[in-house]
Amino acid sequence: MRFTCPQSQLIANLAFVSRAVAVRPTHPILANIRFEADGDRQEVELVAYDLSLAIRVRLAADVAESGVVTLPAKLLSDIVGKLPAADVTVAVEKDTCTATLTCGAGRYQVYGLGAEDFPPLPQLNDSSQRVYLPVEALREGLNASLFAAATDETKRILTGVHVTGSATALEFAATDGHRLSVAEVVLLEDGAAAAPFALTVTIPARALRELERMLAQQTEQVLAVMFDQVHIIFQSAQQTLISRLLDGSYPNYRQLLPTQFERQLSLERRSLMASLERIAVLADQRNHIVKLSISQSQQEVALAVEAPEVAMGRELLPAQVSGSDLHIAFNIRYLLDGLKSMNAHEVQLCANQANQPVVVQPVSEQKTTYLIMPVQIRD
Amino acid sequence: MRFTCPQSQLIANLAFVSRAVAVRPTHPILANIRFEADGDRQEVELVAYDLSLAIRVRLAADVAESGVVTLPAKLLSDIVGKLPAADVTVAVEKDTCTATLTCGAGRYQVYGLGAEDFPPLPQLNDSSQRVYLPVEALREGLNASLFAAATDETKRILTGVHVTGSATALEFAATDGHRLSVAEVVLLEDGAAAAPFALTVTIPARALRELERMLAQQTEQVLAVMFDQVHIIFQSAQQTLISRLLDGSYPNYRQLLPTQFERQLSLERRSLMASLERIAVLADQRNHIVKLSISQSQQEVALAVEAPEVAMGRELLPAQVSGSDLHIAFNIRYLLDGLKSMNAHEVQLCANQANQPVVVQPVSEQKTTYLIMPVQIRD
Repeated sequence: MRFTCPQSQLIANLAFVSRAVAVRPTHPILANIRFEADGDRQEVELVAYDLSLAIRVRLAADVAESGVVTLPAKLLSDIVGKLPAADVTVAVEKDTCTATLTCGAGRYQVYGLGAEDFPPLPQLNDSSQRVYLPVEALREGLNASLFAAATDETKRILTGVHVTGSATALEFAATDGHRLSVAEVVLLEDGAAAAPFALTVTIPARALRELERMLAQQTEQVLAVMFDQVHIIFQSAQQTLISRLLDGSYPNYRQLLPTQFERQLSLERRSLMASLERIAVLADQRNHIVKLSISQSQQEVALAVEAPEVAMGRELLPAQVSGSDLHIAFNIRYLLDGLKSMNAHEVQLCANQANQPVVVQPVSEQKTTYLIMPVQIRD
Repeated sequence: MRFTCPQSQLIANLAFVSRAVAVRPTHPILANIRFEADGDRQEVELVAYDLSLAIRVRLAADVAESGVVTLPAKLLSDIVGKLPAADVTVAVEKDTCTATLTCGAGRYQVYGLGAEDFPPLPQLNDSSQRVYLPVEALREGLNASLFAAATDETKRILTGVHVTGSATALEFAATDGHRLSVAEVVLLEDGAAAAPFALTVTIPARALRELERMLAQQTEQVLAVMFDQVHIIFQSAQQTLISRLLDGSYPNYRQLLPTQFERQLSLERRSLMASLERIAVLADQRNHIVKLSISQSQQEVALAVEAPEVAMGRELLPAQVSGSDLHIAFNIRYLLDGLKSMNAHEVQLCANQANQPVVVQPVSEQKTTYLIMPVQIRD
């Protein structure tokens, strides 16, 4: 096997697939990336697969000799990352799996492993569906939901984002038990997704974070998405991401959303975020709790944090308040997470009592509902 | 006490003095910064002092009420850092030492301590000298020496930089036992330093790293430097840095420098650095050792790193070589440190045998001598 390509191309693609290399590999080959050079197509395929997430890219290269091998991801990336911005030649000796990289006056040897033991990528079953989804819709849905998924691995199904879809819209939902974000994104009627389909999957947040990266560098407008009951595949012309789905039934989150509210509060999203960011310095010293005092007569909301014996802080914000006064407390990080994921100029807070869930919504086209449980405090 | 000043001014000065706040304070007040507002001068003085290093700044402010207090450095910096870019008012209640910061619609209270217990800054004795040194000369000397000082606290005197000076030149020397950097900087004859003085001090590297920061933001050309046998003071119009000196006699490093060399090698500094940086990826996997093979017949030097069973790398560089061939090995980091501190286009490596010290020097006006001990390797 022997190919030549620009250093910048090689390092960018190594960095991209490396995200699917096992962090603590159970077998040495899982720390490697599979390289397959194809002389006919003048292309090199790079694959990383940690048995849960797989990433594959195709890279145009000058392939002098076809072949396949696996090479250590970290070491190779470290070396290629330092090479000068010039053409790199990778030549692999078949018997020893030793790769020699040449670039300028530098010559590096890296020891690989045969590709026979590299795990095969998962295949979809016969019941699989294929749809084409707009990149922008996926971006929007992930941005509004991914942050709310549980990071605690013991929460299993909650560590994923639940995605449901038909021909006209996708819904993304994520919750960690303390807050829930539900985002609906409309698929254009005349777009590529017009064919009907039925999507109900829970995708691991980790895979979706990689999908976010893949979407960020996408020049195409639409991705092909294939799925069955066990796996989902996102595919562009050069890049493929394959993830195992989370098993089990996702909670019926719709029933958690209150339908009526006694109090409403509208205010500028950026001002609220800036005040929260400031006062978070104190809240984070203790228990991350911020108290909101909502005053109808003053048409304002006061944010307060007390860190006894250390410091206290207070921020005042004008707001449009309807309904009677309310004192309510939140985990300041949860509140900030939700506000950051929105892009509206104004947001609306809808509340009932101090011990009942609150809903934050952007005052815009964006169809996002962010539910957050207040923290119980003694007055 | 009550003063008002722009947030940007306050945070910049807090950040600067905070470097002298004790990391693990033995007394609560050492975690604080001393504030003294002077209504007559319309100035606030900030002081931090960890009993070894002190930093003092003067900050122009609108002082409505004079007074003095100490406030927690970290908390105050965290809060002020988040305030909007507007005027901040700091009002301190004398009895409780409680400071109230107001900025826009935000109001923060921070609990301080009385200034009575704050340690007084060291005073110089009657034998002290005062000189004026060019900022550029100090910068140059520190850049060429500071990196070579020992970081291991048990090496005591070697954790400092030895500075000697007269009216015409300063010499900076630092060594950690494995390498030695000696830099001479010329003081202009017609400059402010023309008055004769005799400087022989070893200044802790930690204080000099702060001096480097102070020099980097200096708009003045010259700093006042006062010293006796125990302390040294660097002073500009607004900023003062006071450091305790290291006690004990500094090794006679001049006698370590070889006076004759059997072999010389000249090469481009940047090319050598780039090749070393690349190959360092492999060297750092193991023992940081790089082997140099210097060939007179080829007029080149080969850099090689072997990490058995992992990888190997080799870089070739053209060089002007005089004297017979030599195989010699170094800690790659030590070699890189020295090259980075120089600014010449070309450097010269002067060597005798593979087990004798090597001297690296810039081929330029810069008077720096970098001595490095080779590593013994079996061939």
